[in-house]
Amino acid sequence: MEEWYVGIDVGGTTIKMAFITATGQIVTKWEIPTNKQEEGKYITTDIANEIAQKWQKHKQQDVRLTSLGLGAPCFFEMETGFVYQAVNIGWRNFPLKDELEQKTGLPVTVDNDANMAALGEMWRGAGEGAANLLCVTLGTGVGGGIIANGRILHGVNGMAGEIGHITAVPEGGAPCNCGKTGCLETIASATGIARLAIEQVASAPDSVLHRHLQETGKLTAKQVFKAYAEADEAAEKVVKEVGFHLGLALANLANALNPEIIVIGGGVSRAGEPLLAVIEHYFSCYALKRVKEGVRFKIATLGNDAGVIGGAWLARESRQQI
Amino acid sequence: MEEWYVGIDVGGTTIKMAFITATGQIVTKWEIPTNKQEEGKYITTDIANEIAQKWQKHKQQDVRLTSLGLGAPCFFEMETGFVYQAVNIGWRNFPLKDELEQKTGLPVTVDNDANMAALGEMWRGAGEGAANLLCVTLGTGVGGGIIANGRILHGVNGMAGEIGHITAVPEGGAPCNCGKTGCLETIASATGIARLAIEQVASAPDSVLHRHLQETGKLTAKQVFKAYAEADEAAEKVVKEVGFHLGLALANLANALNPEIIVIGGGVSRAGEPLLAVIEHYFSCYALKRVKEGVRFKIATLGNDAGVIGGAWLARESRQQI
Repeated sequence: MEEWYVGIDVGGTTIKMAFITATGQIVTKWEIPTNKQEEGKYITTDIANEIAQKWQKHKQQDVRLTSLGLGAPCFFEMETGFVYQAVNIGWRNFPLKDELEQKTGLPVTVDNDANMAALGEMWRGAGEGAANLLCVTLGTGVGGGIIANGRILHGVNGMAGEIGHITAVPEGGAPCNCGKTGCLETIASATGIARLAIEQVASAPDSVLHRHLQETGKLTAKQVFKAYAEADEAAEKVVKEVGFHLGLALANLANALNPEIIVIGGGVSRAGEPLLAVIEHYFSCYALKRVKEGVRFKIATLGNDAGVIGGAWLARESRQQI
Repeated sequence: MEEWYVGIDVGGTTIKMAFITATGQIVTKWEIPTNKQEEGKYITTDIANEIAQKWQKHKQQDVRLTSLGLGAPCFFEMETGFVYQAVNIGWRNFPLKDELEQKTGLPVTVDNDANMAALGEMWRGAGEGAANLLCVTLGTGVGGGIIANGRILHGVNGMAGEIGHITAVPEGGAPCNCGKTGCLETIASATGIARLAIEQVASAPDSVLHRHLQETGKLTAKQVFKAYAEADEAAEKVVKEVGFHLGLALANLANALNPEIIVIGGGVSRAGEPLLAVIEHYFSCYALKRVKEGVRFKIATLGNDAGVIGGAWLARESRQQI
């Protein structure tokens, strides 16, 4: 009997879902809007209905759905899958695992979305199965997932992997959503890069970036990397600042964790090789020689599928532990 | 049949050895000088002879020595226990595990000394069995061991845990033995603290520290903490700088690893509560709220026994995996 897994990635806007084989191939994937009404109480029913319908369409002889792995931006308890809070979804003190198991009839494993993406990249993406992996997601915020000895790290209360809240600027840094100041997220997220760019153009009236700002009324991380490719001085300063802080923070983590691969994902990672080059330049200033020799940098390859594939990996893992 | 383990901690001057029970109690401990002649080639024979002699003296009916765990300051390959280099001992490309197994007749597990100390503190010391533990040793240098999900982290080539080489001062820092500059070790080690103190007294001729320097011709970390207890302003500046860099580096690591306990060990940790207080002050400025809530700081409790106890833990672990 072949086994398929259900991978689910719950976001603030959409819920991504997929049936995935035991080797991590996507059989079918689809998405539905996230119904956030009444503290997200309809979400588990929506998910269960979707699975039942798609299964009717895709089911095959000698195949069965065996388990489900779900990721969401949330604080939760590992053992019970009880969600304390998921601000962008609406859940508060919500027995996610129990409800979803009851409604789908499948064993459910819950994790946070950044960890799921890291597991996905490890299994089928840029991580290439590395047992020691650092995954950084540069999006609206900066997320992270850390895999050591082949397992995702959760820490004592589920907070492990919060790479975005490493303090990059100990004094006088920009305010962060977490309540601290100077977090890596305030510099290396799409939002942070745009902020640095706007600061930079104030003193660079002749820059490509300044022209962009005047023409479009805004500056994005994408524009910064475009202007960087055109050797715009203001863009260079921004990219170097971003690269310095990412390179230093990742080198410091790598000196402690000695990863084999560091995967850079999220929207900002579409900047590709030029971004990697500047991160690696500063990384190599601050990492120990043997740590540097042991590591490779890669751009994430799974894009929006990382979450559902990581979910399927979790679902498969939970099966194997029974 | 009761099982005892052999824990061995090989240093540049002495080799510490112990027979240890399955619950981590030391039956007997002793030390011998490290014979570094001819690239340390006599060390394994010395160890085997010592074990045989002590066993004759301490052996009991219904007890047997089952395995051996050894730590040393070295670069080595995990699977084979082959030592690439141990500068302070003399070993170079030395098949440590194989030789020691042959000479003692016991299965041998090798690890580096900082990891062994962390495992010892986890098992029987300040770590209290915590599955997520950070251990920092403030001695001549700054060492570290990281335990996550109950296992010590080695990383891809054995470098995990090099907390001392986290870059504290990215530009213009003091040179470090590792070849980089501005490492945490250049600030928070006994040597680093003494260096900061000597810098500080230059502009503080009326300080207690300056008097110490004039009277004794030198300044030690111990004197710095003594003067700090007497509210000496120069000592306060030094201790605050040390605390700031340790607090920041540990908060950044904790945001990534979310440990339950952070153990501070090594000679400098004899400063005790006043040292913890200043580290915790800065830590709480830079750690995420939930990370802060999840962690406790502790001074290491095993002193020089941490290594041999950690060795016995490794020896016991290797038995359980068979």
